[in-house]
Amino acid sequence: MYKLILSEGKARRGTFETVHGTVQTPAFMNVATSAAIKGGISAYDLEELKCQVMLCNTYHLHVRPGDKLIAELGGLHPFTGWKRPILTDSGGFQVFSLSSLRKITEEGVTFASHIDGKRIFMGPEESMQIQSHLGSTIAMAFDECIANPATYEYTVRSIARTTRWLRRCKDEMARLNSLPGTINKHQMLFGINQGATFDDLRIKHMKQIAEMDLDGYAVGGLAVGESTEDMYHILDVVVPYMPENKPRYLMGVGTPSNIIEGVARGIDLFDCVMPSRNARHGHVFTWQGIRNLNNAKYEKDMLPLDEECSCPVCRGHSRAYIRHLLKSNEILAGRLMVMHNLWFYNTLMERIREALDNGTFQQFREEYSEKLGTRI
Amino acid sequence: MYKLILSEGKARRGTFETVHGTVQTPAFMNVATSAAIKGGISAYDLEELKCQVMLCNTYHLHVRPGDKLIAELGGLHPFTGWKRPILTDSGGFQVFSLSSLRKITEEGVTFASHIDGKRIFMGPEESMQIQSHLGSTIAMAFDECIANPATYEYTVRSIARTTRWLRRCKDEMARLNSLPGTINKHQMLFGINQGATFDDLRIKHMKQIAEMDLDGYAVGGLAVGESTEDMYHILDVVVPYMPENKPRYLMGVGTPSNIIEGVARGIDLFDCVMPSRNARHGHVFTWQGIRNLNNAKYEKDMLPLDEECSCPVCRGHSRAYIRHLLKSNEILAGRLMVMHNLWFYNTLMERIREALDNGTFQQFREEYSEKLGTRI
Repeated sequence: MYKLILSEGKARRGTFETVHGTVQTPAFMNVATSAAIKGGISAYDLEELKCQVMLCNTYHLHVRPGDKLIAELGGLHPFTGWKRPILTDSGGFQVFSLSSLRKITEEGVTFASHIDGKRIFMGPEESMQIQSHLGSTIAMAFDECIANPATYEYTVRSIARTTRWLRRCKDEMARLNSLPGTINKHQMLFGINQGATFDDLRIKHMKQIAEMDLDGYAVGGLAVGESTEDMYHILDVVVPYMPENKPRYLMGVGTPSNIIEGVARGIDLFDCVMPSRNARHGHVFTWQGIRNLNNAKYEKDMLPLDEECSCPVCRGHSRAYIRHLLKSNEILAGRLMVMHNLWFYNTLMERIREALDNGTFQQFREEYSEKLGTRI
Repeated sequence: MYKLILSEGKARRGTFETVHGTVQTPAFMNVATSAAIKGGISAYDLEELKCQVMLCNTYHLHVRPGDKLIAELGGLHPFTGWKRPILTDSGGFQVFSLSSLRKITEEGVTFASHIDGKRIFMGPEESMQIQSHLGSTIAMAFDECIANPATYEYTVRSIARTTRWLRRCKDEMARLNSLPGTINKHQMLFGINQGATFDDLRIKHMKQIAEMDLDGYAVGGLAVGESTEDMYHILDVVVPYMPENKPRYLMGVGTPSNIIEGVARGIDLFDCVMPSRNARHGHVFTWQGIRNLNNAKYEKDMLPLDEECSCPVCRGHSRAYIRHLLKSNEILAGRLMVMHNLWFYNTLMERIREALDNGTFQQFREEYSEKLGTRI
């Protein structure tokens, strides 16, 4: 249940109640692909890093260790040790991005596992069943994520099918949630808006799925090849058609600036692999901009990664030490920088919420939206 | 300053005071090769894992990031964040084991860096200077670690040189500790006994170095190719000639059983990469024996790694989850198992000390020495 507390312009401050606890929004969901954050971060670390929602990948967990095994063990919560909300994606994005061999029909998608090449079929029902096995708090609808640029004709056919798939997802989840052995009988379903970069198709599709009264709505198919301007334009166009009383999730986005701009356009939830992926390459986010720890200037720098940060890493380690670890290919380098970056993202959301609470979000946006993307 | 509290047979319970705090012995030193424990463990994690002494490798830190850089930054303590005692090895072992091209003369050893092949010279003075730069609590003497089996003739010549090198180490450390800019003016020096597997040479060398009144004494050149029986035999032979009022350190050893048997023969300090290296391959130590997490039988096993363990990993994670992480090549797998194994080793030492305090070490040895090495 989403509750809007206040607005500033289009930006929203709210709460989202789930069976696994309440999420303060806007919020960033921390990506734990195979039920672990890349870089050696556990569910217990996430608690320390102010994470509110963990996101796990249905496709990865389906192929390994298998969703049925996780179901036997009680679902993702006891499996990972994470006690708060978990969102699972539908597997659709990975099916379309990781699999070279795939065939789409009305029923669903046949594709080759990226691990052993085995042929796998996944459609709306299969995706819902897998996510039900995982016992996540929020399941995402099975959709086709169209890569940009796409043709108008293809997009028309694709979004029509995605809408038909969404109805099947809703029906299947209702059936699964009513079964006696289901792990989370209160599992929620978010619908996903598609439509490539076509304003009219985005709006048309959003109107269609809004009618289905789902638990939340996502904007998908962005940050998949289009420009940042196009992405913001699509948000400007489509968000007004998203239900006000439901959480709005911008999938796979993005940089700190993207997030601030997303919030400014009415988005409540975000997720992205950027904080962990960039960290593993030595790029850390700070309140002054992005720092590249590979840079020789940090060789003797005993300051923390970010002097304005109070994360567990900045409380105890220097740039010089972390740079040494990075140059020595020590796993600890990645772990420390991932921890810092996740803390940074979760703190960014906290500061966005505080700014909204204080009616100063526009000031915050002006101060930080550009600054956080500069290289220092 | 070592203080013997009590003995049970040859086993000793003591305390070892250093400028960075007191070590309760027997103790296991946790190996942080390049100023980080392999597997993503930081100095702050080590505190949580009941570690008393961190061990860093002089050779690795000399080639990267460079001991002079670490000296500029205040030494290993501020560099790593570790506040308790640090022991640095002399670099000798790596010079002899990692470098394919090396030439030994009376002056020292010329060898090729394993990173870029650059020619490096290291002798007793260089080793002391590097360790002084690192600012460790305890520096190890520069010796030749003879691989077993070795000829009698070579061993005679080698230990004579190692003794001459030890005198030079002692003189150089005295000089360095008196300089105004030295980081740790109270740096201690441990001498190292060599002599391959020859009883008479081991004893002769030990008698020679015991006369130099160093801060501690180590038995080196064991666990380098000889049988476990030979290793125990050498300890039986040489330990009686080690000064009673100084800590005794068995270098690079070993399994839990080796440690219990080392304590039973009068050893106070140990170090080994085994807990972290084995963990990274999925082998964990438990109070019932060694568990291989690669084993399919753990696929659905929701018990902790060790039901008798209260480490941070066993408090929150299951065998099934850790096995999944291992099979998915998640870095978190290694981190969790390294944490568990280090906690196990440090707890093993704690229990050995408790047994000594209670006069029940012989019982403890009978119960665990063999058991901890069995595969379960």
